[in-house]
Amino acid sequence: LRTKLPAVGTTVFTRMSALAAEHKAVNLGQGFPDFGCDPKLQEMVGEAMRAGHNQYPMMSGVPALREAIAAKIDALYGHSYDAAAEITVTAGATQAVMTAILCCVHAGDEVIVIEPAYDCYLPAIELAGGVAVPVAMQVGADGYSVPWNQVAAAVTPRTRLVVINSPHNPTGSILREADLHALADIVRGTDMLILSDEVYEHVVFDGGRHESVSRHPDLAARAFVVSSFGKTYHVTGWKVGYVAAPAPLTSEFRKVHQYNVFTVNTPMQHGIAGYMHDPEPYLGLPAFYQRKRDLFRDGLEGSRFTLLPADGTYFQCVRYDAISPLPEAQFAEWLTTEIKVAAIPVSAFYSKPTESGIVRFCFAKKDETLALAVDRLARL
Amino acid sequence: LRTKLPAVGTTVFTRMSALAAEHKAVNLGQGFPDFGCDPKLQEMVGEAMRAGHNQYPMMSGVPALREAIAAKIDALYGHSYDAAAEITVTAGATQAVMTAILCCVHAGDEVIVIEPAYDCYLPAIELAGGVAVPVAMQVGADGYSVPWNQVAAAVTPRTRLVVINSPHNPTGSILREADLHALADIVRGTDMLILSDEVYEHVVFDGGRHESVSRHPDLAARAFVVSSFGKTYHVTGWKVGYVAAPAPLTSEFRKVHQYNVFTVNTPMQHGIAGYMHDPEPYLGLPAFYQRKRDLFRDGLEGSRFTLLPADGTYFQCVRYDAISPLPEAQFAEWLTTEIKVAAIPVSAFYSKPTESGIVRFCFAKKDETLALAVDRLARL
Ligand SMILES: CSCCC(=O)C(=O)O
Ligand SMILES: CSCCC(=O)C(=O)O
Repeated sequence: LRTKLPAVGTTVFTRMSALAAEHKAVNLGQGFPDFGCDPKLQEMVGEAMRAGHNQYPMMSGVPALREAIAAKIDALYGHSYDAAAEITVTAGATQAVMTAILCCVHAGDEVIVIEPAYDCYLPAIELAGGVAVPVAMQVGADGYSVPWNQVAAAVTPRTRLVVINSPHNPTGSILREADLHALADIVRGTDMLILSDEVYEHVVFDGGRHESVSRHPDLAARAFVVSSFGKTYHVTGWKVGYVAAPAPLTSEFRKVHQYNVFTVNTPMQHGIAGYMHDPEPYLGLPAFYQRKRDLFRDGLEGSRFTLLPADGTYFQCVRYDAISPLPEAQFAEWLTTEIKVAAIPVSAFYSKPTESGIVRFCFAKKDETLALAVDRLARL
Repeated sequence: LRTKLPAVGTTVFTRMSALAAEHKAVNLGQGFPDFGCDPKLQEMVGEAMRAGHNQYPMMSGVPALREAIAAKIDALYGHSYDAAAEITVTAGATQAVMTAILCCVHAGDEVIVIEPAYDCYLPAIELAGGVAVPVAMQVGADGYSVPWNQVAAAVTPRTRLVVINSPHNPTGSILREADLHALADIVRGTDMLILSDEVYEHVVFDGGRHESVSRHPDLAARAFVVSSFGKTYHVTGWKVGYVAAPAPLTSEFRKVHQYNVFTVNTPMQHGIAGYMHDPEPYLGLPAFYQRKRDLFRDGLEGSRFTLLPADGTYFQCVRYDAISPLPEAQFAEWLTTEIKVAAIPVSAFYSKPTESGIVRFCFAKKDETLALAVDRLARL
């Protein structure tokens, strides 16, 4: 059987989680909370099932959920999407990304991907018959940044799509207003589209603001903006996300969506729609995770790890050159098997071998979990 | 924006359901029950949430669910799939079909599709860059059958995949042992694969047996066998299905799956896994739906509709030539808007315009719903 995805193996997340389990390591690798969600949210899903919301919902999503999403985007970012024609509920952000790429990337089209990059963009581009054009972020003492001049230089007449991601996994950096202006300058006057992965939109620290593409009308007019409830409501296993996009893009998106998954779990959609009426759970998220970030950072203060800035997401990147000369993948394995704390090598997020001496820790964990990890790491 | 799917509009199911709602018609169009599922099943999902099963499950599915699926297939069809390497849980059967096609159909590959065909096969083939090669079923007084000699004649060196579906939507026909032997003769000695859509596997009438591809080792060795819990447990909106396939096929399937949806709703998987311990719900399904089928058929007995055989699925196809000369799409619309009973034109399941004077009714409805529909239809 000739493979369609020769470069694909088991994801680094699955492998590191398995290694962590095998070696009874504290798992700060794969990005998911080790604590529960709000019981009220669970109860609302239970009520939806008992109310009989168990059959096919509308293909584009339960109307109440699409309306709640549109209202939230409007309230937070000042862009009013039409819930009927511009919001589509997806089986998580990954399905939204795959579907967006499949619906607009034709054979031979080029897609600019800024690396390090979350691992689902490249296989989707490959399945669409497109060509990924990676541009590497720069990393200095003040953290990661996007070299927009290099993005501009990567554009060709075949460029169809630019994939951006803020707050950024794995680096924890965020795009600022100047970044989006730089992007706007690059796409102006072209027919390039934008795919903006914003699943950590509610996890921005130190009073910073999330620079959603939907804040910028000129970008939003050509963008698929993707988010998900998994990271926001501590339910990574529920697999409910969405894409917001202008009607003509949504129309193409739904053509693929309806034959990819057709619809998304009905009771979960109803439960989340009801729960969204209260903005507190997502408005409180920055403070909730900033506390955990600081707990983790303070614990490593004075250790031989160098902490990179962590402006958003629930990831902390660290340099370990003062501890070990190992390449990242081996260092992450050694940390997991010997020190009993699992991490993710940032090298796993590059399409070509790239060593920066940096690994990523997830701090979406109980305080006890973080304390245990810090205890083991600070000794190194 | 240049479309990837020029032939795709809104699905006939969505359109007819909308028309039915608008005209307050009894909806025997789209295939979903208008009654609830077992409260015990809902309760098990609720328990899974409360037990904290809300984060990412394993990419291939919750082990207990994969094991329950493998055990069921073994018990019913005598094929023992390895739950770890050969069963993958999907976001419904549609996602399984899309993923199977994306993982094995390369640009230019041909895929044989037997028509009328459920509407998700063709767009998936198109997205994969493949070429659909339709073969039309024959329809006579004793119903629909597959002309295997024409399937054989459609094979070329580029044929990569044959899509079959039994019990068959929309015709309600089922494949018999002789059909599978004919298929086995065709694929023997080639590298053709089989995609077998068996979502109605538990809905076979009159003591007939479901001829699962997994009963036939020579076919199973090259097949993706797809099923879903939506039709079996009366929860079409839950979107949990699976694919069973030999390890090398599963390995390719998972490469695409992990970047399409990555995983499937965790509490739903746990709930269903627990519920599967009792085989009664699916073993009782033939009797449950046969009663409804007979209620519907008996009601139309003596009417001017001609009932085609209904050997499986929850669909009844009828000829209406004694009632109207309209083409199928118009007749179905007229039925919906004037007679207030929605149906699906079988012409919607063909890639080229094909009129057979046949529409499909769904009888997965409450007895009262069926009585109301019969009352309106029998008068014609
Ligand atoms: C889909 S598993 C990975 C979860 C995640 O977002 C991460 O760890 O980066
Ligand atoms: C995915 S909506 C269609 C449901 C169905 O299986 C049918 O009506 O044929």
